[in-house]
Amino acid sequence: MKKEKEFKVTPYEVEGEVDYSKLIKEFGVSHIDEKLLNRIKKHTGDLHLFLRRGVFFAHRDMNWLLDEYEKGNKFFLYTGRASSKKSKVHLGHLIPWILCKWLQDKFDAEMWFQFPDEEKFLYKQDVTLKDTAEATYEDMLDIIALGFKPEKTHFIIDTKHAGLMYKEACKVAKKITFSMVKSSFGFTESQNIGSIFYTSMQAVPAFLPSVLKGKNIPCLIPLGIDQDPHFRISRDVMPKLGYYKPAILHNVFLPPLTGIGGKMAASSAEENAIYTTDSPEQVSRKINKYAFSGGQATIKEHRKKGGNPGIDVSFQYLKMFFEPDDRKLEKIEKDYKSGKLLTGELKQILINKINKFLQEHQKAREKAKNQVDKFILKN
Amino acid sequence: MKKEKEFKVTPYEVEGEVDYSKLIKEFGVSHIDEKLLNRIKKHTGDLHLFLRRGVFFAHRDMNWLLDEYEKGNKFFLYTGRASSKKSKVHLGHLIPWILCKWLQDKFDAEMWFQFPDEEKFLYKQDVTLKDTAEATYEDMLDIIALGFKPEKTHFIIDTKHAGLMYKEACKVAKKITFSMVKSSFGFTESQNIGSIFYTSMQAVPAFLPSVLKGKNIPCLIPLGIDQDPHFRISRDVMPKLGYYKPAILHNVFLPPLTGIGGKMAASSAEENAIYTTDSPEQVSRKINKYAFSGGQATIKEHRKKGGNPGIDVSFQYLKMFFEPDDRKLEKIEKDYKSGKLLTGELKQILINKINKFLQEHQKAREKAKNQVDKFILKN
Repeated sequence: MKKEKEFKVTPYEVEGEVDYSKLIKEFGVSHIDEKLLNRIKKHTGDLHLFLRRGVFFAHRDMNWLLDEYEKGNKFFLYTGRASSKKSKVHLGHLIPWILCKWLQDKFDAEMWFQFPDEEKFLYKQDVTLKDTAEATYEDMLDIIALGFKPEKTHFIIDTKHAGLMYKEACKVAKKITFSMVKSSFGFTESQNIGSIFYTSMQAVPAFLPSVLKGKNIPCLIPLGIDQDPHFRISRDVMPKLGYYKPAILHNVFLPPLTGIGGKMAASSAEENAIYTTDSPEQVSRKINKYAFSGGQATIKEHRKKGGNPGIDVSFQYLKMFFEPDDRKLEKIEKDYKSGKLLTGELKQILINKINKFLQEHQKAREKAKNQVDKFILKN
Repeated sequence: MKKEKEFKVTPYEVEGEVDYSKLIKEFGVSHIDEKLLNRIKKHTGDLHLFLRRGVFFAHRDMNWLLDEYEKGNKFFLYTGRASSKKSKVHLGHLIPWILCKWLQDKFDAEMWFQFPDEEKFLYKQDVTLKDTAEATYEDMLDIIALGFKPEKTHFIIDTKHAGLMYKEACKVAKKITFSMVKSSFGFTESQNIGSIFYTSMQAVPAFLPSVLKGKNIPCLIPLGIDQDPHFRISRDVMPKLGYYKPAILHNVFLPPLTGIGGKMAASSAEENAIYTTDSPEQVSRKINKYAFSGGQATIKEHRKKGGNPGIDVSFQYLKMFFEPDDRKLEKIEKDYKSGKLLTGELKQILINKINKFLQEHQKAREKAKNQVDKFILKN
């Protein structure tokens, strides 16, 4: 009997090689199947590669959301980013945001983007509010750079918009006990009382548009699966406040460069992730030096036995993010498996793709500096 | 050996006959002695009856506050009122507010008045935010009616001013663990996470003026002794954030009509308290019917043995609140003790005093309706 691999996924820690099928059961979410994909496609015409290739692999209540949409009850999108200087934006962070942008375009949806600038301050001893404020600004540039429509996109910053949010957060908080957060987040009694309260603030954007518009509006939250526990609690609370439970789309983690398994941790070694501000040289160096290879030890052996794309980080990046053309990807896979394509060559394909993406992204990121005010919700 | 009477004083419950000397030891506060009173008098010229007669009986750091004042470092005043429809303003509530008004005049001090409109909502299952908002407005009228200077008085309402307060509350919250609030407030794990966080919000006005003015300003908080635990925690935290510990003046509770001991509970039976909106008839009826008498069972017996002003609620009200003239009070005491003054006569003296006070208060309270906006801090 095969020994089960151990792994851990919480909003505050991701460890080990994640078994996503097991996670689906543990978290009580649903697999995104062909039927659901086809239903989405009916409205969007095509499917984003993140959907086509299983980067978004699980969901809550997507069929209900589409039922509502088909009845003419449009949804809004909500996701967030807890900024800190120690966690620069990397490619993995972009995944839910890019899907949001795609969904905004396809469904003409309002986008609410939360920047909980108190979260890392409350959870990390050495993070200051000045750090999170500066990092929030930087992260906004990355988000704006992805092409969100300013007239349909609203940035809310917890400390800045607390005048709107705190009252709503209290309504949520009244329904959540310490026992509940203790079991969901693994808290102990030495947890500070700000971090204990925090999950209430994270729940607010899922119904704030309904509060502001005075009607119940469905909400869809694309997020990394590790953030699901926050919404497991708030989904229980929201109907008690008279709001719909938000639907959720969950993405897998983009693997760290050093190997499949775990989440690309922005706060760990520089080498483990490609940041949105990396130069072409940095990208080239990181991929060549660190990207875990599924190839063989020597060229001779590789030509003979071929590589294993299933564990090859470069191939996974192409599949999950950078090669949208299914036929091209198939050819790369075939050539790598047969040994025709060498690890160095595969890495070069990825390096070129990433650098092309980052060149455009960084240009848009510069332009975004003049646009920030258009995105921040008027207080 | 005399059995010690049991009593309980927390921000959420006051039970039994309070032994204030014991409370001074338990809470670790200091007695207000003659020396301190004389020091205050040096600056104020006279002493308010609440100080002269021991209604304010304990303090924290008053000597430090006066040291700072004498060095030219002026203090601001802070107190608060957690409104709810089930707790109408009664005479006992007015005690710290009246002292604040007197201190504002004598020390030309800014007054910061907090309305934590989420507190009762978070702590009481059946209180809504609509209830607390409506009650907050009513309570503001009582406070304005006491004569605070609008240009030097700032009302802050937690949900309305959370845009200013939440960020500061997070700084406080980061320094307070669940264990700490558990032991201070007797919380269990079934406490809701809003009420757990709340003490951080209550700490904020004690340093918010320092934040807004960019310099460290001493703070003085007059309050009922039951509210002290909130500040025991925040006084520990504030120096860690670079602010002075606030000084505190503690008042005893105005006894309930039905007898000395305990706090006048606004939420219990109507009969137990005189509300600021009571009519002359209501006052007369309540005092005559319910005010616990230290007199004898019959007039004949009273004439012979005399009354006991120490347990007589009407006498205590005169002493603690309504008869500022020491000689007049002394005469009343003497006559009551000797049996010359009957209970009914003593009650009538009090009824006249209360009704005179309330007539003016209610007139000012009506006028206050046009002044509320001048007092609420501009957001």
